[in-house]
Amino acid sequence: MIRIGIYGYGNLGRGVEAAIKNSKDTVLVGVFTRRDPSTVKTETNAPVFSANDILSFKDKIDVLVLCGGSATDLPVQTPELAKNFNVVDSFDTHARVLEHFKNVDASAKKGNNVGVISVGWDPGFFSILRLYSNSFLPNGCDYTFWGKGVSQGHSDAIRRIDGVLDAKQYTVPVKKALDAVRSGSNPELTTREKHTRLCYVVAKEGADKARIEKEIKEMPNYFADYDTTVHFISLEELKEKHSGMPHGGHVIRTGATGLGNQYKDMIELTLELDSNPFFTGSILISFARACYRLNKEGHSGCYTAFDIAPKYLIDKEYEEILGHLL
Amino acid sequence: MIRIGIYGYGNLGRGVEAAIKNSKDTVLVGVFTRRDPSTVKTETNAPVFSANDILSFKDKIDVLVLCGGSATDLPVQTPELAKNFNVVDSFDTHARVLEHFKNVDASAKKGNNVGVISVGWDPGFFSILRLYSNSFLPNGCDYTFWGKGVSQGHSDAIRRIDGVLDAKQYTVPVKKALDAVRSGSNPELTTREKHTRLCYVVAKEGADKARIEKEIKEMPNYFADYDTTVHFISLEELKEKHSGMPHGGHVIRTGATGLGNQYKDMIELTLELDSNPFFTGSILISFARACYRLNKEGHSGCYTAFDIAPKYLIDKEYEEILGHLL
Repeated sequence: MIRIGIYGYGNLGRGVEAAIKNSKDTVLVGVFTRRDPSTVKTETNAPVFSANDILSFKDKIDVLVLCGGSATDLPVQTPELAKNFNVVDSFDTHARVLEHFKNVDASAKKGNNVGVISVGWDPGFFSILRLYSNSFLPNGCDYTFWGKGVSQGHSDAIRRIDGVLDAKQYTVPVKKALDAVRSGSNPELTTREKHTRLCYVVAKEGADKARIEKEIKEMPNYFADYDTTVHFISLEELKEKHSGMPHGGHVIRTGATGLGNQYKDMIELTLELDSNPFFTGSILISFARACYRLNKEGHSGCYTAFDIAPKYLIDKEYEEILGHLL
Repeated sequence: MIRIGIYGYGNLGRGVEAAIKNSKDTVLVGVFTRRDPSTVKTETNAPVFSANDILSFKDKIDVLVLCGGSATDLPVQTPELAKNFNVVDSFDTHARVLEHFKNVDASAKKGNNVGVISVGWDPGFFSILRLYSNSFLPNGCDYTFWGKGVSQGHSDAIRRIDGVLDAKQYTVPVKKALDAVRSGSNPELTTREKHTRLCYVVAKEGADKARIEKEIKEMPNYFADYDTTVHFISLEELKEKHSGMPHGGHVIRTGATGLGNQYKDMIELTLELDSNPFFTGSILISFARACYRLNKEGHSGCYTAFDIAPKYLIDKEYEEILGHLL
């Protein structure tokens, strides 16, 4: 059994906890939190410890799965913890991946540990598809569409507007753009042409809804570059119909083969997820397994999904995967 | 530059030849044929040699790409040639993969070479997706649909019927079955429910078309278990509308995450290919690159797509793939 620790216990931590339970070869040692452990209750009754005590678990944990945020938590935590543990994270700030890689690589090598970074579904599974597709169709164009799904960041941005009680924002790919891409016409698409934004907002009593709607639609970076629709609904309706965290998307590469590039090809990966954090948790546990195995083989340093052969991810014997999955 | 040899020059050989031309880091040393080399002309004017002379190229070729058939050629050729060359094939007889793996592994290790087997799109790319999907959704169901695309084997079977001048057979996935799978209902589907078979047949003058249609539809293994449609057309129409080799398909896994498996997820990979052999050729060249690099690193023995980290396949620097594909 691979002994796993969860570091940070929010939605993603709960997703990892369920994935450990649903895997035959993993066991949860405990959850580590920066909050007072006595105030945190896990879904599976796994013990909760203070993040301050993590070093005393050095020999009791095979892989530590880091479930903090990419903005400020992981850039510090992953390199720091990689000195003493095999670690896995889902760091998703694309612009800072190389810097994160180098930091984790240095400290993981120092500690003879393996650090696996950026393994969610994007970056992660979608990245893997982009890499295979670019290898198989070197002459082509890449497209990524996200949704229909809940964007936590955009929902939070709406909630910060004066007069808003609660809100949920869905990112929705534009069908016309998807169809154009799938047709192989290699369109150049603007931000506005690729996705729309759909907002369900609960206004406080007496709030100026017209002003709220205007503030949302004109918010720079978040909404101004998109066609945005705002629906005001009751708190009851928000809780009943919009409490989930569904997500998904499409990675598409269109390209050509043949001496004159006369043959057109299309590769598309589609994900439809009822729960973004629970699927991400499941991916993290697959890579925790790979992390453990790579370290057992004597490897150390930082790895991404690009560096790990697929066989390391699965809890099955090699002859079984050759027989049933090849 | 990676120096490639093509062993066997049919449709797949031509696909590999184009892929070498379309890759910046590969060069074609020559084509090796069992026919009289003077009767074979390549598309790129690459030289043609007798297969009997292959051993004299031992130091001139980095990877030999084998383009023979899976029924009788590859089970003999891949292990034999792996004694002296790094080799790549697209062996696709699922039932004999383990045996083929063991044979190639033994001789490749003896020669300190790397042999990569079964790397087309199925087995190959589809297998990779099945493995990742099974890792990320351990609790779920797998479905593979092929088509719409030309089945060479089924077209040949029709051509062998008395009174048939020429024929082309398309395998077509049943939309109703695809929709049921995508809905997450985990249906159990019979052979007949998953695919239909569509045949375009040119009958010889005076041939009994009713008898030909009956023979096709009742042919065991090939057609009897399917709903089959037969269209009789002219030779001109066959050549004009059905001379291509399009193919494609869908790998789908539906599964669940969450402590109570309450969250449903769907993963789908779709391929739409204008030319089956040219896309397969492109995959073979990606894995030839991986084969070369693994051998350069000192590895030997047999590999499948499961054993090879994605980064080995692509002609790009690591920092570039971290920056652009992750």
